Amino acid sequence: MPQMSRIALPIFVLALAATAAAAPPTPAAPPLVTAASTSMLGFNDTGAAAQRALETRFDASLNPENLRGWMKQLTAHPHHLGSPHGKQNAELMASLFRSWGYDTRIEEFSVLFPTPKVRQLELIAPTHFTASLAEPPVPGDSTSGQTDEQLPVYNAYSIDGDVTGELVFVNYGITADYDELARRGVDVRGKIVLARYGGSWRGIKPKIAAEHGAIGCIIYSDPREDGYGAGDIYPQGGFRPPLGAQRGSVADMPLYPGDPLTPGVGATKDAKRLDFSQAATLTKIPVLPISYADATPLLQAIGGPMAPEGWRGGLPLPYHLGPGPAKVHLKVQFDWKQTPTRDVIATLHGAERPDEWIVRGNHHDGWVNGAADPVSGLVAELEEARALSELVKSGWKPKRTIIFAAWDGEEPGLLGSTEWAETHADELRQHAAVYINSDNNGRGTLEAGGSQTLETLVNQVARDVTDPEKSISVADRAMASLIVSSPPDIRKEVRSTKTFRISPLGSGSDYTPFLQHLGIASLNIGFEGEGYYGQYHSIYDDFDHFTRFMDPTFIYGVTLAKTGGRLVLRLADADVLPLDFGRFSASVDRYVSEVAKLADDLRESTEEENRRIQDGTYRAIDDPVETWVVPAPKDPVPYLNFAPLRNAAAVLDQSTAAYEKALSGKGGSLSTADQKRLDAILLGAEHALTRKEGLPRRPWFVHQIYAPGFYTGYGVKTLPAVREAIEQRNWKEVDEQVGLVAKVIEGFAKEVDRATSVLIGK
Amino acid sequence: MPQMSRIALPIFVLALAATAAAAPPTPAAPPLVTAASTSMLGFNDTGAAAQRALETRFDASLNPENLRGWMKQLTAHPHHLGSPHGKQNAELMASLFRSWGYDTRIEEFSVLFPTPKVRQLELIAPTHFTASLAEPPVPGDSTSGQTDEQLPVYNAYSIDGDVTGELVFVNYGITADYDELARRGVDVRGKIVLARYGGSWRGIKPKIAAEHGAIGCIIYSDPREDGYGAGDIYPQGGFRPPLGAQRGSVADMPLYPGDPLTPGVGATKDAKRLDFSQAATLTKIPVLPISYADATPLLQAIGGPMAPEGWRGGLPLPYHLGPGPAKVHLKVQFDWKQTPTRDVIATLHGAERPDEWIVRGNHHDGWVNGAADPVSGLVAELEEARALSELVKSGWKPKRTIIFAAWDGEEPGLLGSTEWAETHADELRQHAAVYINSDNNGRGTLEAGGSQTLETLVNQVARDVTDPEKSISVADRAMASLIVSSPPDIRKEVRSTKTFRISPLGSGSDYTPFLQHLGIASLNIGFEGEGYYGQYHSIYDDFDHFTRFMDPTFIYGVTLAKTGGRLVLRLADADVLPLDFGRFSASVDRYVSEVAKLADDLRESTEEENRRIQDGTYRAIDDPVETWVVPAPKDPVPYLNFAPLRNAAAVLDQSTAAYEKALSGKGGSLSTADQKRLDAILLGAEHALTRKEGLPRRPWFVHQIYAPGFYTGYGVKTLPAVREAIEQRNWKEVDEQVGLVAKVIEGFAKEVDRATSVLIGK
Repeated sequence: MPQMSRIALPIFVLALAATAAAAPPTPAAPPLVTAASTSMLGFNDTGAAAQRALETRFDASLNPENLRGWMKQLTAHPHHLGSPHGKQNAELMASLFRSWGYDTRIEEFSVLFPTPKVRQLELIAPTHFTASLAEPPVPGDSTSGQTDEQLPVYNAYSIDGDVTGELVFVNYGITADYDELARRGVDVRGKIVLARYGGSWRGIKPKIAAEHGAIGCIIYSDPREDGYGAGDIYPQGGFRPPLGAQRGSVADMPLYPGDPLTPGVGATKDAKRLDFSQAATLTKIPVLPISYADATPLLQAIGGPMAPEGWRGGLPLPYHLGPGPAKVHLKVQFDWKQTPTRDVIATLHGAERPDEWIVRGNHHDGWVNGAADPVSGLVAELEEARALSELVKSGWKPKRTIIFAAWDGEEPGLLGSTEWAETHADELRQHAAVYINSDNNGRGTLEAGGSQTLETLVNQVARDVTDPEKSISVADRAMASLIVSSPPDIRKEVRSTKTFRISPLGSGSDYTPFLQHLGIASLNIGFEGEGYYGQYHSIYDDFDHFTRFMDPTFIYGVTLAKTGGRLVLRLADADVLPLDFGRFSASVDRYVSEVAKLADDLRESTEEENRRIQDGTYRAIDDPVETWVVPAPKDPVPYLNFAPLRNAAAVLDQSTAAYEKALSGKGGSLSTADQKRLDAILLGAEHALTRKEGLPRRPWFVHQIYAPGFYTGYGVKTLPAVREAIEQRNWKEVDEQVGLVAKVIEGFAKEVDRATSVLIGK
Repeated sequence: MPQMSRIALPIFVLALAATAAAAPPTPAAPPLVTAASTSMLGFNDTGAAAQRALETRFDASLNPENLRGWMKQLTAHPHHLGSPHGKQNAELMASLFRSWGYDTRIEEFSVLFPTPKVRQLELIAPTHFTASLAEPPVPGDSTSGQTDEQLPVYNAYSIDGDVTGELVFVNYGITADYDELARRGVDVRGKIVLARYGGSWRGIKPKIAAEHGAIGCIIYSDPREDGYGAGDIYPQGGFRPPLGAQRGSVADMPLYPGDPLTPGVGATKDAKRLDFSQAATLTKIPVLPISYADATPLLQAIGGPMAPEGWRGGLPLPYHLGPGPAKVHLKVQFDWKQTPTRDVIATLHGAERPDEWIVRGNHHDGWVNGAADPVSGLVAELEEARALSELVKSGWKPKRTIIFAAWDGEEPGLLGSTEWAETHADELRQHAAVYINSDNNGRGTLEAGGSQTLETLVNQVARDVTDPEKSISVADRAMASLIVSSPPDIRKEVRSTKTFRISPLGSGSDYTPFLQHLGIASLNIGFEGEGYYGQYHSIYDDFDHFTRFMDPTFIYGVTLAKTGGRLVLRLADADVLPLDFGRFSASVDRYVSEVAKLADDLRESTEEENRRIQDGTYRAIDDPVETWVVPAPKDPVPYLNFAPLRNAAAVLDQSTAAYEKALSGKGGSLSTADQKRLDAILLGAEHALTRKEGLPRRPWFVHQIYAPGFYTGYGVKTLPAVREAIEQRNWKEVDEQVGLVAKVIEGFAKEVDRATSVLIGK
């Protein structure tokens, strides 16, 4: 149940404690649902105590050696989508789930999945060099030599192409970088761009490059961020060696993830498919990722102006922009075949409310041997499922239904999760209360993102899980980490509320179809920060690397299982679904302030920029020996009407306050029937944050609070329809979307009001 | 003469212009001194017009080919202190000055100047490597092969030493870096530190290293800032090649500059000298500078924890901290000989006020062939002197005496200027009104630093000099540059006042003895920002490099001559010395606010840091696999009494306002006798900013507003006695110094009051 407003909470609890000390406890039956039951949202005190005892038993059966054994087995060979070992893994997991008593099936879909036939990259002027495009086996690494089974280095969903052109170095290849290029008179039309990884999700780079007229895109890992600049390289240390490269998808997933041929519908055998030529998420130009060893001769051969200071990486050479004289020939051809994805779905049916589902997932496909990504999270999920089965054996049954999923084809494009979510969309919208995702895991600090209605639940769980390296809770560790890394306002909030915020979710893992396509409250959890993580999407992400540099004793795997297990257990067993509208409402207030400030800041920076253009400031500073182009002035930013959003947020604040008052006024006596009525409203609440029309120009994304950025990819945009309209200087659209999003927020407030009605018995 | 307060000025001028347009000009004689004569401080309108005409004639005789010819000649061979070519240069310049009619002499001093006998640096474990310590000749560079005449790569005033020890990488080797090392459990006691250039003046590095117990210090140029990370390397581009290294002094000049054996007195032949063992400015440990090629094997061999992210440079390796396993043997021995410095002093006697001196200087010694440093500034000064002599030939005579100086031995330690200033201290304090320095010069933007009493003069001169690359004044270009690089408050100030601030001076060139030891108002001027400046203190700073990468056509040399020439001409010819107390007073207000804020910020950061230490935040975040040491708490920062400083600043504001009111009230009719009385006060005003006791623990530095930082070297500390007491957490000293500095500011205000008395005829 939602607690009192988060600022007031500690005082409230203190006051209560003082009262308790002064007077003997009343012998009356403990309230079922009260605001004072803050120690475990959704439970009364008796229930909370029982739940904690259950969690202690759950913890006791967790065993790191299980995680180690499964990781060893699952990563023994490359297990990418469509691989023999991937199929074996799915079957292995299905048999495990079955052995633990789960109602288990493997669901198959058929998706378009390109694998390389031809990959060529040559520097043809002013000197000649042929890129190796190969990661060599490493001594002492037992699987890096499985060359025949490995998917080579490539970017999935690049189109086929055979292009020759001059090189331009474009830094991260994001929009701001093209502004800098224009300032220096560098145009990428008809050129091949060389971008470095970072600064955005990789699929954004070819997308923006193509929008600017480039004919090809090469992406390399710069050693400053992803190589010796980060630490000792593999196998001496954990960081990326010179010939290590980063595979990865470049499908335009901010448009829609999943099978490019079946947007919005499940890729079942007989689904209606788009023609290949209509697949909107394939890149417009050919793309290839390379290592920094392969990038060095290319960068060395580029001339032209020096790159801006912040663009210069860790290679021992002056970074120039081009274009040319470096000229390359890039050729890629793929085998565009339909490939089966195999999702493992294991269900533990709820005893009391079987039609309310808690879904817990992690993908199982890797780019190669995929130990950190994704098996580190997957083995924690497996151990959660096994430990739950132990509880079942001892007589426990969940109130609600629990579904464990192991997704296939996440790497190429969230394929398994998206097709499953699309296929089961109606039942999921009706039954799924919460989706909990994990992916990579390693030593470090809890990182949690998700719907802020779940923020209190996450905080409470994190308070009850002990960090295995420290004698404190993972919540305390997460807060300490925030305190040293955050600006003073966040620091102050963390200290005064003794809670941490969870991040809003963009994209990058399997929560996206649940949260952003179906409007199901979602979480993404994992531990990170202490691993030496230079193996990402390479052949070196394997058991040997993981057990040397990521989580050698699997203690953080077990800690993830404790965290994920508690989330599942509390969500499954709570008297009422543990959502907190107060934290969500406070988040919406912040996002509304942010978009208003974004417009103000953009107005100010546009004015300043235009002034510099028009009064000759740029002309005055530009070195005449170099090429500098004074940009064209931009249209001024009008004053925009954010009042509808502010009013809607105020309405939501009021509704939330009324709900919290009703909760505490109710005194806790909610009948089981009312609990169920309340549950039904809470379960559907997140759906009220969607619009069936979706976001402008991307109808697949229906959530109006969270979306991956159209030009950032992983990076979240909150209130995306409004925020991106501002960023794209589409003032008319800002106006329209402000109104629409305000209505969505008001709609959500109405759901909160309905929940209040249940509480006050109307 | 001081103008009206700088904020009001533009409106005032506009109003005046409007009045002038509405009514016919009054036929009365133009006022001699008025606040309205803002177009040329110190002149009435008639005088200003005449002065402008004079300046036009001055400009007309400037010829870039003279600069080119002199540079070619002066840089034809290495011309360091004590070199044969250095002596020839002094004699050549003396003969030039004489040929132009100046009363010229070469003044000699005898200073302690070490040159290397032995330089050895070997890596002896875990592998073996011997550093080359040599800069190779470069094809197409006509002087880089003069190996026999070149001073090798070394740091002057390192002590002799023969040490062996493990290496520790200390980043820039500043105090904050040692805090980071301590946090990581790395101690330099008994070790040899490897520091990179930058972050402070180089002499600070061995000083702090020795304070922390290191036994030797190696300084290298990291290619990120000073090599291929900055641009194409020499000879393809202008930036530092792998074997290029930076010579330079490491004497403890923030204690006192000049001859280490004669602090405070001129190093004349029979001066009383300290014993070598008493020379406090020699380093405590041996020091050697090396190239990045020589540094690479050393850094590669260092193990231990990774260096913090900001410490990692441009070499293709992981930067570790050590200590060890890299172990080096470092041996340096010097020939500690007395060496003659030869200052060229050329005087043009004033016609009307010969006892008021305007001194213009630039050093003539280089580390090797020294083209940019110092000949680029020196040839501009020579051309100024020549062009003045042309004016003299045509009948003009300066009111005041002009002294041109070419200093020797600046590179090892401001030797020539300091010894001259110390020798002539009494007469300079009595007669020298202003010292104007230059040093390096190249294409770019005017950079001016100095006493803010000269800020208006500099602005007015800069408004009258046209930038040779643009059709705007160098003032407009400097302001444009500020507008794009400054925070909003400065941007706003620049735009509203149409003026730029000049920087307060720390150290690094020959103004130091004049400003900070004698209390003479001083300026430092030069153009910079568009040169490809990677030759600093190497054999590649020569004519070929300069004419390819710094100022190929010497147009900025001529622009410097126009700027320096105007400053000299206006200072020499003004009816009253052109000082502006308003700009100075505003600067003092800012500095007082800054030191108060410094204490507040330090209090806050100390509280935050102590809290993190005491509540376990650091323990919570530290990775237990690595070594992390929680620091000891610091003493809290008490609330300090800045009221005396604030009151003194307020008194100064009032005195300044009264002076400006008197100026405008006077209506302009000041007799020549009163002009001279006023001049005498203005000439001595800066001296009122000194205390004969000097700064705490460094009596040589007497100026109470500007000093080089004891732990920054070049970097200025304003209100140094107070600011450094805060930084060094010496609360008692803060209290004492606040009172003393407040008295100094009040004393200066009294001088302003005396000037006001002259104006109002009391």
